[in-house]
Amino acid sequence: MTAIDELTDSFSRLPGIGKKSAGRLVNYILKADSAWIERFANQLATLQEKIHACSICGAWTESDPCPICSNPMRDQSVICVVEQPQDVATIESSHEFSGLFHVLGGVIAPLEGIGPDQLRIAQLLERVRSGSVKEVIIATNPTVEGDTTALYIQRLLSEIEGLTVTRLASGLPVGGDLEYADRLTLARSFRGRMKF
Amino acid sequence: MTAIDELTDSFSRLPGIGKKSAGRLVNYILKADSAWIERFANQLATLQEKIHACSICGAWTESDPCPICSNPMRDQSVICVVEQPQDVATIESSHEFSGLFHVLGGVIAPLEGIGPDQLRIAQLLERVRSGSVKEVIIATNPTVEGDTTALYIQRLLSEIEGLTVTRLASGLPVGGDLEYADRLTLARSFRGRMKF
Repeated sequence: MTAIDELTDSFSRLPGIGKKSAGRLVNYILKADSAWIERFANQLATLQEKIHACSICGAWTESDPCPICSNPMRDQSVICVVEQPQDVATIESSHEFSGLFHVLGGVIAPLEGIGPDQLRIAQLLERVRSGSVKEVIIATNPTVEGDTTALYIQRLLSEIEGLTVTRLASGLPVGGDLEYADRLTLARSFRGRMKF
Repeated sequence: MTAIDELTDSFSRLPGIGKKSAGRLVNYILKADSAWIERFANQLATLQEKIHACSICGAWTESDPCPICSNPMRDQSVICVVEQPQDVATIESSHEFSGLFHVLGGVIAPLEGIGPDQLRIAQLLERVRSGSVKEVIIATNPTVEGDTTALYIQRLLSEIEGLTVTRLASGLPVGGDLEYADRLTLARSFRGRMKF
């Protein structure tokens, strides 16, 4: 195997990159600025050393606790529960939420052998019980697994007095078109309708 | 900038990879097997050291001359002229051609300031004159620039006695549909029609 074949093979292991795209990337690398390639290769090699899961919320971070958990300006009374570490960055980029996060690390998926014990649910209960948390917003994806997981967590949390548990609204995407909305999304947008 | 942002930025410099896809790749790398990442980063860092342009044909190679130029079993009497080094691999994968290659390194594109002198045309003439070449197949892309370049080379080569200059057939792609063929492709397929 030549160096070209080896790198093509590695690129094509990445999600969403097929054999043809990988070949195109290798051709780009062959002609690219060598100083940049060196930086790129170094970033790749050192990423896992530099980035870890925050010991409190589970988000990717360079420092521990993460900048969000250790920021006293964040609203300590609200925790937003998400499936994956990358969901934290997505929600942060909306500038819509100023509380804390909690990453589950997945969803309950019995067919894949993932039960509640494999997720960071116990840690969530502990955080809610020990802290000054008033609201938990469950922001798992609006999928069968995400909804099931949300329901499971909601039941566990409902036993805690004085705690509000909410779920992100699900419905028509902004800029969307009724004509292209699927039946389930449309049904949810009816059930979740709000007064003007 | 965190290590995640830096690597996302590098991935998004690659052709065809936007900011969102780059983020997804970084999340994949965060969870991927670290031994594989190390190999991947090393392949990336060393590619340009290992791969060079063949001094004869201009194709990417680890040894010089390249395995094709130095293979006595290849038909030394035919040279296939292509635009880019990667075109050699594309044609090789068709198993349709057993001669030698010549990479131009681009096409004549006056608007981008690329004239014949920036391409490996002089080297082609030298190879054709000094060798036992009987046919030159011009396999530049069927685009305006590719056609112009083909015509330019054909004129230079037409002065050499006993040499046949040919151009790859252009027409309907196999498995294609007349209905979806563009006007220019259809026109070419008429002009290039063959007897049964």
